[in-house]
Amino acid sequence: MKKNIAVYAGTFDPITNGHLDIIERASSVFETLYVTIFVNLKKQGLLTIDERVALIKEATKQFDNVVVDYSSKLAVEYAKDVNANVLVRGIRATMDFEYELQMAFANQYLEKDIEMVFFMARQTHIFISSSTVKEIVSHGRSVKDLVPECVELALYEKYEKKEIADEYF
Amino acid sequence: MKKNIAVYAGTFDPITNGHLDIIERASSVFETLYVTIFVNLKKQGLLTIDERVALIKEATKQFDNVVVDYSSKLAVEYAKDVNANVLVRGIRATMDFEYELQMAFANQYLEKDIEMVFFMARQTHIFISSSTVKEIVSHGRSVKDLVPECVELALYEKYEKKEIADEYF
Amino acid sequence: MKKNIAVYAGTFDPITNGHLDIIERASSVFETLYVTIFVNLKKQGLLTIDERVALIKEATKQFDNVVVDYSSKLAVEYAKDVNANVLVRGIRATMDFEYELQMAFANQYLEKDIEMVFFMARQTHIFISSSTVKEIVSHGRSVKDLVPECVELALYEKYEKKEIADEYF
Amino acid sequence: MKKNIAVYAGTFDPITNGHLDIIERASSVFETLYVTIFVNLKKQGLLTIDERVALIKEATKQFDNVVVDYSSKLAVEYAKDVNANVLVRGIRATMDFEYELQMAFANQYLEKDIEMVFFMARQTHIFISSSTVKEIVSHGRSVKDLVPECVELALYEKYEKKEIADEYF
Amino acid sequence: MKKNIAVYAGTFDPITNGHLDIIERASSVFETLYVTIFVNLKKQGLLTIDERVALIKEATKQFDNVVVDYSSKLAVEYAKDVNANVLVRGIRATMDFEYELQMAFANQYLEKDIEMVFFMARQTHIFISSSTVKEIVSHGRSVKDLVPECVELALYEKYEKKEIADEYF
Amino acid sequence: MKKNIAVYAGTFDPITNGHLDIIERASSVFETLYVTIFVNLKKQGLLTIDERVALIKEATKQFDNVVVDYSSKLAVEYAKDVNANVLVRGIRATMDFEYELQMAFANQYLEKDIEMVFFMARQTHIFISSSTVKEIVSHGRSVKDLVPECVELALYEKYEKKEIADEYF
Repeated sequence: MKKNIAVYAGTFDPITNGHLDIIERASSVFETLYVTIFVNLKKQGLLTIDERVALIKEATKQFDNVVVDYSSKLAVEYAKDVNANVLVRGIRATMDFEYELQMAFANQYLEKDIEMVFFMARQTHIFISSSTVKEIVSHGRSVKDLVPECVELALYEKYEKKEIADEYF
Repeated sequence: MKKNIAVYAGTFDPITNGHLDIIERASSVFETLYVTIFVNLKKQGLLTIDERVALIKEATKQFDNVVVDYSSKLAVEYAKDVNANVLVRGIRATMDFEYELQMAFANQYLEKDIEMVFFMARQTHIFISSSTVKEIVSHGRSVKDLVPECVELALYEKYEKKEIADEYF
Repeated sequence: MKKNIAVYAGTFDPITNGHLDIIERASSVFETLYVTIFVNLKKQGLLTIDERVALIKEATKQFDNVVVDYSSKLAVEYAKDVNANVLVRGIRATMDFEYELQMAFANQYLEKDIEMVFFMARQTHIFISSSTVKEIVSHGRSVKDLVPECVELALYEKYEKKEIADEYF
Repeated sequence: MKKNIAVYAGTFDPITNGHLDIIERASSVFETLYVTIFVNLKKQGLLTIDERVALIKEATKQFDNVVVDYSSKLAVEYAKDVNANVLVRGIRATMDFEYELQMAFANQYLEKDIEMVFFMARQTHIFISSSTVKEIVSHGRSVKDLVPECVELALYEKYEKKEIADEYF
Repeated sequence: MKKNIAVYAGTFDPITNGHLDIIERASSVFETLYVTIFVNLKKQGLLTIDERVALIKEATKQFDNVVVDYSSKLAVEYAKDVNANVLVRGIRATMDFEYELQMAFANQYLEKDIEMVFFMARQTHIFISSSTVKEIVSHGRSVKDLVPECVELALYEKYEKKEIADEYF
Repeated sequence: MKKNIAVYAGTFDPITNGHLDIIERASSVFETLYVTIFVNLKKQGLLTIDERVALIKEATKQFDNVVVDYSSKLAVEYAKDVNANVLVRGIRATMDFEYELQMAFANQYLEKDIEMVFFMARQTHIFISSSTVKEIVSHGRSVKDLVPECVELALYEKYEKKEIADEYF
């Protein structure tokens, strides 16, 4: 019997309900789903890698086939390392699509055996991005319906400490 | 252990190498892959349903988890009938994407439990469509690299009998 | 004080909740809103003009500044006839946008004094079109959340009489 | 010294100022420019092939390196026949672009030695299409700035004889 | 009688003829139009806020229902503060559209009672942006047809003082 | 006889097989083709201007009508200086197209006599960009099929000296 191992990679600064929906759906299709923070050494985020790992773990604890991880490798190389055969991507808009198409071609060039598989964002999630969430919080507004509760609390705490400034968008 | 059953639906008039590539990749990810001709009663194709079934069976015989079928139901209803949890779609271009996004939302409305999963066409296949193939053959040109051999032969036969006319594009 | 009279033109075969949302929002911005069925003599619809007028009247009866009408003129000419200065358009997707941009330029050429004003569809409405609604009903499925109740009943009646066939999409 | 022969193919039913602008610019870049009506046997136009040839000849008489012709072949095959090495295409909008990209790939497959070369429509021409022109005339409106004078007169004559009906768009 | 108050927000660094056209058209549709500079604290512009306010006031002095202002709030919050019910946006291209669609959804989430209303740029303005204008001036070229005269003079003065460098684009 | 002189301008940091394909095709259409590095003073590249010139010269040595150069002027002004009447552009994707359309309009405004002419990237090159190439090398992977051999060697040398860091993408 087939055993599909998939990787869902992203910055997750922070994880949103849009990400969580893709995770829920992909974890229902694949045997194991790695949710992996891709570390960009030159671009510091709002949350540390440790904070992001903790929040993703909390937000995905109900899915018993989800593994939370982080890496600074190319996505296809990370996938090979964890023995995955699938890279999962979420798409929200036509602009995402164009970028994803180019990345799919680049990945086909790099590793023919890793399959990219795409899920469309749900209608109610197509405007939710980590940047939008941070921008809304930085103006003191609620993001209750946009992120998991643990993320909401973490962001409000940052906001009160004045740590959310424009530089993180 | 998870058992994913997927449906890849289309008109397949005729099946092309673009379709075949999606079938190969999807059959490597899912347990069983139904390749299902969706019958549009008002639009007669170049090939009969029986001809299409025969050509798809011939072209996919190397994949032992592919089942060839046809239906006139809504794709999500057909999927439920064969106990599938996934609808597979191939995307070649931005215009496809927009249409697929709308269809994904319509399907989410109709059946929350059927997941749509997208594969990008390979670079070398992004211009191949059934219409383009028929148009090229109707001008007496070869489509050798665009369709499986059995389809190539069937189309040349139609062409010699003057059955391929503009009305099928 | 300014007195804006707006026209929202379409085929409305049938009116959907997507149309109704644009009507509600435009009627809150403009003094008077004409909801006008544009009659295409060569393309017979599922519903007669009279049926469409009746359904739009029923569906919009709560808005006291909405006038229901029909015409076979160019939209800009109709607008001039009813003394309107604004044409209202709803946009759901990038493909709509391109078409609308070209139409906006054509209308600027025809009548410099009629302003086109665009509203984006609500997220929950972006997949709803008259065609999708008819296709779903033609397969015997409910369109309860997609159209006003009076339209739902009219469509089920057509469906039972087998009047909804593929030819109307 | 290089001798570039180019083909600009289209339906030209009728030729518009948008086409004429591409012809002017391409004729300034290439040695010889064939303006070739591609005949679609199944789709009768408003104007006969002879009428179209006459109007294009009249409209392009100031360009001494333009040859007017018609053909029912594939564009790349016609190009080979007249010894051309370039196919010229005009692009007005993103939707045009997608279609042209696919056609460029199909043509690269069919004839590696014919180069496709694209010109963007001028800003003031991006909404002008043969269909828009016919639709405006069919409502009795002027298309003075959209087509050459000879076309304008031909269309008004058709309009007075009631020959312009919706079926030609 | 309805009293629509609209806000047209932007960076306006500097105001261009494209902006001015949207202002003219929106001021003809709405009772009062706030033209409001949104201040981005992290991104210094070429012109100070005071300079921008002065130039917009000069360029819009013929419209008696236009109020010039600036703010660092979210656009929807600013709109509420000035009692506006409409946010006006101009769209020039498909890329703008995608971004605007996402912003429209975000704003619907934040304030259900503020309506976003879109105007398409005129054909002759679709390539005009503040960045393009600054880039052209920084190469010592005229922007006479792209900006109001007062802006042209202000930019040339900056250019002579060598204040326009690549960093402002 | 016409004498077309064309300019193909870019950053070329480094030149890729995608660029090289456009150069090959454009050099077959135009009399002389200038391949010109546009110098952006504020954005230091991975390669110096001298290194880029040397690599382009090496990679294009088989084309006897190609001239390699660099400039910090506006492209249309540089074109006028070298007596060129054509600017050549390559397009890979819909996002490129939008940007190019706007640039074409800006150039039409600046210099009416310089014609912009577009070539679509070959299918096999549509994901190749200088950034992608640098990103792949920075992870220690081969770019053998993506760039000319001389560029490949130059990049590996930079990589071994740890000069390729994230900051160059």
